[in-house]
Amino acid sequence: MRTMLLAASAAFALSVPLTAQEATKPVALAPSEIVAAAPKADWVAIPAEDLLVMTLAPDADGKPRQVVIQLMPAPFSQGWVHNIRLFARAKWYDGISVNRVQDNYVTQWGDPNYDNPEATGKPKPLPEGLKVMGEAEYLTELNASVSPFLWFRDHRIAYEGFGKSGSVQLRPVPRRANFFDPYSPIVTFSNGFPIGTAFAPNSPPEIGWPTHCYGMVGVGRNYSPDTGSGAELYTVIGHAPRHLDRNIALVGRVIEGMQHLSSLPRGSGALGFYTAEEAGKRTPILSVRVASDLAAGEQPKFEYLSTESDTFATYAEAIVNRRDPFFIVPAGGADICNIRVPVRRVAP
Amino acid sequence: MRTMLLAASAAFALSVPLTAQEATKPVALAPSEIVAAAPKADWVAIPAEDLLVMTLAPDADGKPRQVVIQLMPAPFSQGWVHNIRLFARAKWYDGISVNRVQDNYVTQWGDPNYDNPEATGKPKPLPEGLKVMGEAEYLTELNASVSPFLWFRDHRIAYEGFGKSGSVQLRPVPRRANFFDPYSPIVTFSNGFPIGTAFAPNSPPEIGWPTHCYGMVGVGRNYSPDTGSGAELYTVIGHAPRHLDRNIALVGRVIEGMQHLSSLPRGSGALGFYTAEEAGKRTPILSVRVASDLAAGEQPKFEYLSTESDTFATYAEAIVNRRDPFFIVPAGGADICNIRVPVRRVAP
Repeated sequence: MRTMLLAASAAFALSVPLTAQEATKPVALAPSEIVAAAPKADWVAIPAEDLLVMTLAPDADGKPRQVVIQLMPAPFSQGWVHNIRLFARAKWYDGISVNRVQDNYVTQWGDPNYDNPEATGKPKPLPEGLKVMGEAEYLTELNASVSPFLWFRDHRIAYEGFGKSGSVQLRPVPRRANFFDPYSPIVTFSNGFPIGTAFAPNSPPEIGWPTHCYGMVGVGRNYSPDTGSGAELYTVIGHAPRHLDRNIALVGRVIEGMQHLSSLPRGSGALGFYTAEEAGKRTPILSVRVASDLAAGEQPKFEYLSTESDTFATYAEAIVNRRDPFFIVPAGGADICNIRVPVRRVAP
Repeated sequence: MRTMLLAASAAFALSVPLTAQEATKPVALAPSEIVAAAPKADWVAIPAEDLLVMTLAPDADGKPRQVVIQLMPAPFSQGWVHNIRLFARAKWYDGISVNRVQDNYVTQWGDPNYDNPEATGKPKPLPEGLKVMGEAEYLTELNASVSPFLWFRDHRIAYEGFGKSGSVQLRPVPRRANFFDPYSPIVTFSNGFPIGTAFAPNSPPEIGWPTHCYGMVGVGRNYSPDTGSGAELYTVIGHAPRHLDRNIALVGRVIEGMQHLSSLPRGSGALGFYTAEEAGKRTPILSVRVASDLAAGEQPKFEYLSTESDTFATYAEAIVNRRDPFFIVPAGGADICNIRVPVRRVAP
């Protein structure tokens, strides 16, 4: 039986040299198989304090719609993350809505009466205790608390720096790969998130910042020096708008239910806002809860594949050099936003 | 009045040195203003023979849904483009449907009974006269008929090669820019489309291929050596899956009505196919017509901004170095898929 398809998710048959010695004995494993074969120790439980459960109004068929967001772990964007937990615990987000869906760009939610050209009522007062963040916080100094493990440096080498807490070890590079990035000198992953990095003018230290990949969640803001409070949030629903890196705070990513935000009808107003005539298209947000505040039995549990693990490095290399039957020419490189960090829901 | 927004489409205020002499006298123009100020001569009419008008069934509110696709101009993918016109003229596409919507990947349409694991009927016979294309046709030798004008070469320089039909002229580079690309040695634009290029093993000649950016339209195929006929088509609805470059034929791009394909409900079957239970979600395609076959008064007219024009180079540079008030840090580089070729509908 023929199967007419694009093979992105089809079974892979890759040659993945795992060490220099094993390089002569290729192992045929698909990226998904590499992930499935990861030892339990390579999976990192996401703390319930870092999970946001957002319940939208049911869809037109009456089906429930739930979105789960993983908040950015330290040391990135922690002031905004603090605010977001505060908004959630004040139940401030309950009753807001999705007000903007701009094709190939973002879906944005917040108070429909706040700074919306189509507003018809008064804005909701903000809760007390919000932190006001500075623009310097868009950048984070990478130090021993960060383990930028999978370096995509030197533009031609897959990964050469390994090791946690700043101790860089080298290991044989399995295959040449191209991680050219138009938006940062070096891309890497740290603690489960894609990170752009550069050296400060008088390096070291090295600085890093989260990157605007598909599904990442950011904080809407006004013109500089405003940095946003967390009252307005958006997620990327198109090609990565990486020019927003270092210009807006990223606070996490959607790890489940992304389709509930990406498949919404586009707004026909400026910037994709729903016009007053389209107010009925605004999707109501019934509630947003920090998972740790839910009853124990109701708390969703998720794990991500450690981006500091050998499994992740092997997985990334397999994405770069696809060898499954569908592919004629392996790319030989990859965009950081195409190396998605595996996340899985696990039993409570 | 404050306007809480992400500024992608907001007004720009850029410093765009237009020539070496003018570089000392920056001009504050937004990319959209640069485009709006383009002389009429910089706009290229898209031949009616290259426009495909696809009419979907009306949406749930009864509103009409029309998608316009610009077919790839010579010398790229012309065998498949021939087939697509043939399918359209045989009215073969009439009555097919959108059968697959995979989040952050593709929307795919074709015969729901052809190679679909959820098929319930017999496949539709194909029309006669279809060309069978070879895999070598994924690559195109660039020669005098192609004017790869806006070179993003040397990884640090915005553009240094200018000129049509192979005559390369140099002009001062206004500002350093980073066009690193993980998927090809050099990216450029040719005749209105984004192109990856490389030198053949014993270069010259140079070879090129279209790139899988958002909205690009490609030909579904089976395993190699199959190259697809054009019966199954897809468009990119997420982050550019550039690893498909050189592996699948690209035949054009959606230039109007993209939201009708990108906002469809995602399929819950394998690869995003709608399951048998979801067959009701398949969007019917009522008709697909080559615009030149429509009555003169019904033919839509479109133009694209010549990618060989100085205006386009200035526009691209403005995207690379955003200077409008929203931005704190201009990116200093850009992904080829974030430099979208301006297209406009014009009066018949």
